[in-house]
Amino acid sequence: MAKKFVCSKTEPVVQTKAGKLRGFLLDSTYTFHGIKYCDAKRFQMPTEVEPWEGVKDALSYGFVAPLMNQETPSGEVMIPHRYWPMDENCQYLNVWTQSLDPKAKKPVLVWLHGGGFAAGSSIEHVAYDGNNMSQYGDVVVVSLNHRLNILGYLDLSPFGEKYANSGNAGSADMVAALQWIHENIENFGGDPENVTLFGQSGGGMKVWTLMQTPAADGLFHKGVVQSGVIDHFNDDTKSDGTKIVKALLSQLGFGEDQVEKLETVPYPQLVEAYRQVAPALEKAGEYVGGNPMPNDYYLGDPRIVGFRDHAKTIPLMVGTVFGEFAFGPAIADKWTLPQEEKVAMLQKKYGEHTQTLLDLFQKAYPEKDISDLLFLDSLFRAPSRDFIEKKAAYPEAPTYSYLFSYEFPFDDGHVAWHCAEIPYVFHNVELVPVCNKPGVSDRLEDQIFGAWINFARYGDPNYAALPQWPSCKPGDEAVMLFDEVCQVKHNFDAELVALHDKITPSFLGEEPEAPIQH
Amino acid sequence: MAKKFVCSKTEPVVQTKAGKLRGFLLDSTYTFHGIKYCDAKRFQMPTEVEPWEGVKDALSYGFVAPLMNQETPSGEVMIPHRYWPMDENCQYLNVWTQSLDPKAKKPVLVWLHGGGFAAGSSIEHVAYDGNNMSQYGDVVVVSLNHRLNILGYLDLSPFGEKYANSGNAGSADMVAALQWIHENIENFGGDPENVTLFGQSGGGMKVWTLMQTPAADGLFHKGVVQSGVIDHFNDDTKSDGTKIVKALLSQLGFGEDQVEKLETVPYPQLVEAYRQVAPALEKAGEYVGGNPMPNDYYLGDPRIVGFRDHAKTIPLMVGTVFGEFAFGPAIADKWTLPQEEKVAMLQKKYGEHTQTLLDLFQKAYPEKDISDLLFLDSLFRAPSRDFIEKKAAYPEAPTYSYLFSYEFPFDDGHVAWHCAEIPYVFHNVELVPVCNKPGVSDRLEDQIFGAWINFARYGDPNYAALPQWPSCKPGDEAVMLFDEVCQVKHNFDAELVALHDKITPSFLGEEPEAPIQH
Repeated sequence: MAKKFVCSKTEPVVQTKAGKLRGFLLDSTYTFHGIKYCDAKRFQMPTEVEPWEGVKDALSYGFVAPLMNQETPSGEVMIPHRYWPMDENCQYLNVWTQSLDPKAKKPVLVWLHGGGFAAGSSIEHVAYDGNNMSQYGDVVVVSLNHRLNILGYLDLSPFGEKYANSGNAGSADMVAALQWIHENIENFGGDPENVTLFGQSGGGMKVWTLMQTPAADGLFHKGVVQSGVIDHFNDDTKSDGTKIVKALLSQLGFGEDQVEKLETVPYPQLVEAYRQVAPALEKAGEYVGGNPMPNDYYLGDPRIVGFRDHAKTIPLMVGTVFGEFAFGPAIADKWTLPQEEKVAMLQKKYGEHTQTLLDLFQKAYPEKDISDLLFLDSLFRAPSRDFIEKKAAYPEAPTYSYLFSYEFPFDDGHVAWHCAEIPYVFHNVELVPVCNKPGVSDRLEDQIFGAWINFARYGDPNYAALPQWPSCKPGDEAVMLFDEVCQVKHNFDAELVALHDKITPSFLGEEPEAPIQH
Repeated sequence: MAKKFVCSKTEPVVQTKAGKLRGFLLDSTYTFHGIKYCDAKRFQMPTEVEPWEGVKDALSYGFVAPLMNQETPSGEVMIPHRYWPMDENCQYLNVWTQSLDPKAKKPVLVWLHGGGFAAGSSIEHVAYDGNNMSQYGDVVVVSLNHRLNILGYLDLSPFGEKYANSGNAGSADMVAALQWIHENIENFGGDPENVTLFGQSGGGMKVWTLMQTPAADGLFHKGVVQSGVIDHFNDDTKSDGTKIVKALLSQLGFGEDQVEKLETVPYPQLVEAYRQVAPALEKAGEYVGGNPMPNDYYLGDPRIVGFRDHAKTIPLMVGTVFGEFAFGPAIADKWTLPQEEKVAMLQKKYGEHTQTLLDLFQKAYPEKDISDLLFLDSLFRAPSRDFIEKKAAYPEAPTYSYLFSYEFPFDDGHVAWHCAEIPYVFHNVELVPVCNKPGVSDRLEDQIFGAWINFARYGDPNYAALPQWPSCKPGDEAVMLFDEVCQVKHNFDAELVALHDKITPSFLGEEPEAPIQH
């Protein structure tokens, strides 16, 4: 059925600090795509956009940050993508809202995309579309692009004052976006005093790095960290950018006094030079950029340096999914394979620890097939547990824990993979075929979506369609398991995860091998 | 509501000539993305793909052909895009179907994308998605990528036998795709003896160039040319590729005996060299590639060289839209501006011809506002009329004419722009906000979609929800006007278009200035 569409010369038009913007209305949702929220010179801090006269169109998504590698499309049925033209001039955000009344003061959810701090965009996944979340949740949804990889996270501070914070330029873009939201979101029906950051993978890391960033204080009030805690995040920042920048200059044929040339060298050349020089430095444990750089702007990983006092006051939801990097195919004949063959597969992977692990697994997940243990994640789950334990020590604000253990009707039964929960969070199951399961996925979508919306609205994810969900206390991790039947369990996988984490290889910035390769 | 989703180890799996493919089922539609239909070395004819053992996934769209320019997103509310990773290895097609029964023999519609012969892809527009067309029309929909621009259409024939048809390599890819369809589509429930090509802009041109391509005879049976006829299409092919290739070799520092180096030089370098040398040659009227090259593979523009005997047997639908390149904003205050001010605007554009043109316009379009004349297209409409007249001279197969004159509820009333009819053709109004108009767009979508589907099924677009639509006869162009009220008019705009075409600048491979710039 045709919906109401409005995009006339005069509406919907919103006054922002810098000038007027026109979006469009479809059904009940006002949509604004590609709002420039700041400008920035390469490696430098963002500046405010120039004000304009008249009305600018916000009808097209803006450029996304340039990536360092061309991607090869694969696994699209698991994670459908949306690629987009790239340019350094990438500081754009998108807004979906149900009201343009400054008095409406609806909760604001700001999506921080994944892809580490090196890749992705505000529209990289089909599931990132904010229309349904705004419409079904009656909230304001914002998503944003910011500088990534060596454009957003390369420390040039030893080479000049204007580069003092180039190691966090991408995060400074995010802070500029939050500042834009703070100053403008009222006219989009949003409440600048009720802003929730949510993000997955790198996006989850962005949530807690912004908690450790004083410049962002007061610009957001709650956070959701989805599969966004890993170990070794800032291991390479014992050194600064001196070595990598000198190596880049030399590789490009520039002198050590010609750092400014790095500001104008075409990006593909910069990337190529980086590719030549970075691996050796990285191997030697030197700083090569790519993640936020601890300094007086970003204080560092809270699991290492402690939570800032302001960070302690931020209510959080923190969680992971069952399989995370289990992108490979499920095992064949999962439902008919004899138990002993499954045990043999487990033994091949886990050796002497198999029986102990299996006992712990069956205790934690009595409903699951034992073959799922082949795909269990601890790379994210173990540090997330640690993060939750440490945050829950502060009574200033609650910390909620979840685990998305739902099995997908794909490949005869596939554990949840990294990103698999996102369509449910955005109420976008209808856009992602693999998420559909008649009689099940509508309910699960309602439950997950309801929790996220209630958390954004009230700082508490409790929702009528879910069992009672307490916050975590030190020593008591109350975990909401999102599955065909949702339930809360306490410390249910502590031993399992501890052992699994101990015996599987750790993660340092690159994907481990999939448990089973086909 | 959650839909049925199936993508198991064993279904849906289809046997093709080269091997088994797995797609997915959503609701009633079996979908296969990214099927490799041929391989090809640069500048050379395509070859069959290597057969494989086991089951390959067809779950991700394949690479699209590399473009020569990075695009800047704009006008997305008019034409929402979907960009995708690019690679020369781009010969992929997608299939949507309601049945995998070889006996089902449903009509097959093959979408040839626009973007001239230089840009675009099978998924470039959101509106190109084939799911709805397959589901609502009970047909098999195929869309495909092929080589474009200098990779697909650069004549190197003077430099070696293996390059004999490099000037049509992209078209040879399309023929390989049609051959793949001919050999495999039965197993996707399609009828290899009822294949309809449809395409818009460059895609429309592809339809008629394939009619002039003997290698494609028998591989398709009907065609729809949407905004796909222009003048001067093959004007530059009086010369061959000798000069442009020599200039490229020189620019790249290669000798004239080193043409093979062009096969391996990285594409960005090839493009950069082309950018340096092509404009001067183009200005001098020399061949610089980019369109199919008339030779014994492709016989040339039928309006110049005549329709081949086989081409005469192809039933066609041919049409344009009211505004075509009228992408700019509509005039302000269209509905309230005094008549004399509108006339003044017309006079500024059309000078001494204004009154005559206006009289003809009001005769042709009595329901339209006179300001719409500012945006009237004749660049496509005039040559399309000529094409229709010439094709209709052959009684071997019918030729149907249409004009999409619908006004969009955008910008206070915007004439139809190039590509604006595509969402209606694909039954994808729900995916393109600007197409929504309650009480109107559902009916129009049904009418247009019904015509396309009936034409594909029966070779006749007549449809219960539309007035009787006769085919064209010499001297009698029966035009279906797709608008709020659909109607057939005979030779209704002949004089208008003739005069308009005479007094407005002609089109030679680049967009004219928009009638009104803001």
